[in-house]
This record gives sequence, structure tokens and C-alpha cells, in this order.
Amino acid sequence: MSTVESPPMTISKIALAAGVSVPTVSKVLNGRADVSPATRAKVEALIEEHGYRRRRAAVTKGSGMIDLVFHELGNLWALEIIRGVERVAREEGLAVVLAECEGGTSPRQEWLDGVLARRPKGVIMVFSDLDPSQRRQLEARNIPCVVVDPTGEPTGDYPAIGSANWSGGLAATRHLLELGHKRIGAIGGPEWVWCSRARLDGFRAALEHAGLQVDPELIRYGDFHVERGYEHGLSLLGLDDPPTAIFAGNDLQALGLYKAARELGVRIPDDLSVVGYDDLSVAEWIGPALTTVRQPLLEMSLQATRLVLSLARGEHPQSTRIDLATTLIVRQSTARVASPS
Amino acid sequence: MSTVESPPMTISKIALAAGVSVPTVSKVLNGRADVSPATRAKVEALIEEHGYRRRRAAVTKGSGMIDLVFHELGNLWALEIIRGVERVAREEGLAVVLAECEGGTSPRQEWLDGVLARRPKGVIMVFSDLDPSQRRQLEARNIPCVVVDPTGEPTGDYPAIGSANWSGGLAATRHLLELGHKRIGAIGGPEWVWCSRARLDGFRAALEHAGLQVDPELIRYGDFHVERGYEHGLSLLGLDDPPTAIFAGNDLQALGLYKAARELGVRIPDDLSVVGYDDLSVAEWIGPALTTVRQPLLEMSLQATRLVLSLARGEHPQSTRIDLATTLIVRQSTARVASPS
Repeated sequence: MSTVESPPMTISKIALAAGVSVPTVSKVLNGRADVSPATRAKVEALIEEHGYRRRRAAVTKGSGMIDLVFHELGNLWALEIIRGVERVAREEGLAVVLAECEGGTSPRQEWLDGVLARRPKGVIMVFSDLDPSQRRQLEARNIPCVVVDPTGEPTGDYPAIGSANWSGGLAATRHLLELGHKRIGAIGGPEWVWCSRARLDGFRAALEHAGLQVDPELIRYGDFHVERGYEHGLSLLGLDDPPTAIFAGNDLQALGLYKAARELGVRIPDDLSVVGYDDLSVAEWIGPALTTVRQPLLEMSLQATRLVLSLARGEHPQSTRIDLATTLIVRQSTARVASPS
Repeated sequence: MSTVESPPMTISKIALAAGVSVPTVSKVLNGRADVSPATRAKVEALIEEHGYRRRRAAVTKGSGMIDLVFHELGNLWALEIIRGVERVAREEGLAVVLAECEGGTSPRQEWLDGVLARRPKGVIMVFSDLDPSQRRQLEARNIPCVVVDPTGEPTGDYPAIGSANWSGGLAATRHLLELGHKRIGAIGGPEWVWCSRARLDGFRAALEHAGLQVDPELIRYGDFHVERGYEHGLSLLGLDDPPTAIFAGNDLQALGLYKAARELGVRIPDDLSVVGYDDLSVAEWIGPALTTVRQPLLEMSLQATRLVLSLARGEHPQSTRIDLATTLIVRQSTARVASPS
């Protein structure tokens, strides 16, 4: 974010280079629909080529809004994030505009056109990301973007608020090891999601530190829905030598795992210990109450919103890439192993 | 909505009457902050007195947005509604602006100021309502408002999409009666909420139709949170002559009831049958899977969004007050009464 000062290019120069008028360049910057696709493409290319950035003053005249984009809105997890963003926005007198990626990981161009037209203070992406071209289009307009729970590489240089996934996986697995479990299964999120890999690597590190082999048969992957926990649960518990404990990818998968265990007559925690991830409100209400790794979702979204507003004010926060701590919450779904194998 | 045509008053006449300029009246209509509170109050009073309505053309120049306001964002229920509104908005190329009432039933004036400034196509209120003054301010700007799951009197003349609450309460209770239950408890929502009263009246009607007395000791009230189901569950199941079945106010209360039963060693459905309300996704995953009255939340929010957009286009839909059907979903939490009392 260090190129914000002294823009190397002005709107007039871009207009000259593109052979269009200054108002036309301005229309492209403001996401107006009344510009031909060809002209627009030409202007965007010049904006990108010359690294043009709109002066901040032109941005702050925009609307008092924050755009919030989800990979998907389907579960309780999303709601925790929404509440955090909404709370900070309300304190600041801003409105929250909500969108969903429809299953993709990046929003559609229609969404971006809307953003350029309404000029929000900033954009918050949740478990989703902008593609490089979308990112450059926002940068040119000086609209900051912060990612919550990034799915991409943790070494990316864009602002992001995550949580300590590796440590969470480690803590969950150590807890199971301390209870005497040796045959421990794990269900991960999708394989392409880095935050989920980090949890599984924490899981592996704990096993290896305890001198145990990781049995690849006991590790499964899938999306973060209840159904996946149910399917993998049936499969893992149906093995000839089933695990005595399972670390689920999130609380929803754990809920599916509970159902699989009930159907197979496997008692939790007597026959099977289960650890979840997230600590959604439902975790403490299901029976038995779920031991889980608490991800501070509300705090993550509060911090992301404050960060994006700080960037929008032209400040230069010391850290723009933060992982908040995760905490193991021990409840009733984990117990000493019945018959150590 | 029949006064939309031929507005009896123009902006110029209001400006003249208020002793201010036409641009000042326009600023008030557009929710601009640069008008003194006194001037604003005077103009609003004249707008209300003369029933002024902005011409629709002036409204459609506004932003491509829909405002969505919740009583509270705290539970899964809210998410179903958000998804429906977001889906229709996306199809129409509109953005969704989200807000919460912070525990009150009407949003704050700051929210309304934001609405007047951003001029959305329409406003959708969920389990919340505008006060009469807020409603008039929107009407004057020709911004339509639709209520989803109205908490107020069902005889109100404003557009609303609800569901068949009385029938839902009747179906739930008949199901329990058919299983041989005679001592049936009920937990309602807050007493001031009409939709919740309708469910309890359906409950009473079923009992009375079966020739049974309604025992007031078995009827409880409280908000729609899990905690209330838990508290009332402990209390009802602790009675000398406890109910053999309970009709919960919603699925979350049922979840709390499950926990109370577990703690007291009461088995569901062997010792206690439970019926919920809503059919949230969690209902089919908890153990035992919850018998519940399905409220078509997604469909309700889809219809509400289509209705508000129809009104925004100046159409006159035949029905602006619709209750969608509820359906009893029988799962594993209800069973024949063990020992009929």
C-alpha cells in the first residue's frame, strides 16, 4: 500500500492516451454503464499499465457503505461474520451491502460494476477472494479490500484477518492424545483451502510429536457442510479398525458425524471422541455438548471492518495481516479412550 | 396504495408553505444532512400534512439497492431470509443493504436517514416494523416497504408476507393428539407477537376440539432463543405431573428443550414428544431428528422481494398481504404416548 501517495498518472493523461474525453475516463472509474465495452477495456488497460490511483478525496465523496462478500451464505458461520461487520458499520454510520459468490470463490463482474458505481469505503471478502484483475480495479479507485479467513496462500501481500489454524489443529489433537487416543481420524475442508491444510498439518504435527504414524486411511477431505461429516463419519466408523476419536473440519461436519455415530450405535464420547472447529452457538446445545476449537469469528470480522476503514482513511496500520488466537473449548464430546489399541 | 397517482402537492408548494427554497425541500426528501433540524421538521410536517408523494420517476433515479432490516441477526432463521432476498436482488442486478434493529422492533432514525439518502428500490422489514412516522417518510418518497413474518396485527393495511401460523399450531397439536398425548405443554414466543399468539391459538383450538381442557400451567412464554426453551423445559419437566409432549415456539427453543430433557434423564421421544417450528437445517441433524412445522422462510423472502420490486415499478399487485402454507414435517422426536394419563 506504499504507492498510494504521488500517483504517477492523472485522469487527463489517461484520457489523452486512450483518445477519449476526461469525463469518459471518470465514468469508467465510477463504474457507470454508459461507456462502450471497447472504450472501457482500453481505459482499464491504461489504468492498470500506468498504475493509476484515484486521489483519496475523490473516493471519500462516495457513499457511506461497506461491501461484504461471502463465498456462500449457507451457514451459521456466515452469520457471526455479518454481525461483526454490521456492528462496526452501525457505529460508524455506514450501511453494509451484502453479496454472495454463488459457489465460486470470486464474485462476478456484475458485482464489481456495482461496487465501482456505489463507491463503498471498502470491501470485505469472506472465505473468498478477488481475482488479480478485480483487485487492480479496486486499487485504481483507492477502495481498500480486506479478506476474512483467507482461503489463499497466507503469504499473500493483501490485508487479511485470519486465525491460528495450525495451532488449533495442534491443540485439538493434543487434547485427544492426552485422553489416551492413538487411532485418531481427521476430516479436513476442501484440499485447495490453505486454512484447512494448516489445521490438518497441526493435527499431523501433534501425532508425529507423540511418536505416532499418521494413517492416511483415517484422513478425509470435503466441503464444510454437515453432509460431508455424515458421509465421512459413516465411512470412518465402518472401517475394520475404526478410529476412537475424530477431529472434524468444523462444527457442522461434527454435527454430521454425530448423526453417523447415532445411526451406527456408536456412543459419543464413550465409544468415540469428537472435536469440532469454530465454536458455533449450536456446539454447546447439541447432545453431548461439542468439544471444539474456538475461532473468534465475531472478533475477526470486527477487526477486519476496523482495518478496512482505517485503510479507507488513508492510514497505514502497522499490521495488515493478522491471525487471531484459537482456543480449545473442552465440553462433553471427548473422553478417555475406552480400550487403548 | 391508491393515492400514488395525482399527488395533491408539489415540491414548490411545500417550499412556499415552509418558507424555504425548492432545493431545500429536495434535500430533505433525499435525506441530505445539510439541512437544519428545525427546517427539516417543518418540511416533514408539511409533507405529512398534505400527503405529498414524490413522483415515481424521481425515485427510480435512485441507487440499485434493496434495504433489508432485521429485528435481530442472531440466528439461523435470519440467514434463510437473507439468502432469499440476496438471490432475487442478484437476479435483478441489485445490491442488498443489511441492517439490524439492535433489539428494538423499529430501526433507528439514523437508519432511515441512510435510506432516504441512498434511495433504495424498496425496504424489507423482517420480524420488525416501522413506526407510523417512519412509514410516512418512506411513503412520501414513494419507497415501498414489505414486512416478512409480521409481528404486528395481521389486519394492518401494509404489504406483508407471513405464513399460516394458526394452521401450523393446529397441525402440530393434532399430530400429538393422534399419538395419544393428552397432557401437552406449549412454549410460545413473546406475548406481544401476534404470529406467536396465532400458533398458540391453533394449539388451543386442537385441544378444545378434542374435548380437552387447556391447562394454563403448561403454557409458557418467552423470546425465541435456545435459552428460553432450556429454562421452560426444566420447569415444565420438573412439574409433579409433567407433560408427555411439548409444542415449542420454534426449533431453537426445541433445541433448548432437548438439553433440559438430557439433563433430567427424560428420553425423547420415549418419555417426551417434542414438536418445533420453522424447520431450520439443524432440525434434521440433531438427535433425535426434530418433528417440526415447516415455515417456508426462503420462499417467504423470495416473495417479499418480488413484491417490493413490483411495488417499486408502480404496479398494483392483486394481493399485498399473503400467508404461505406451513407443513408438518414428522421426524423422530414424536412417538405414541408411553402411558396415557
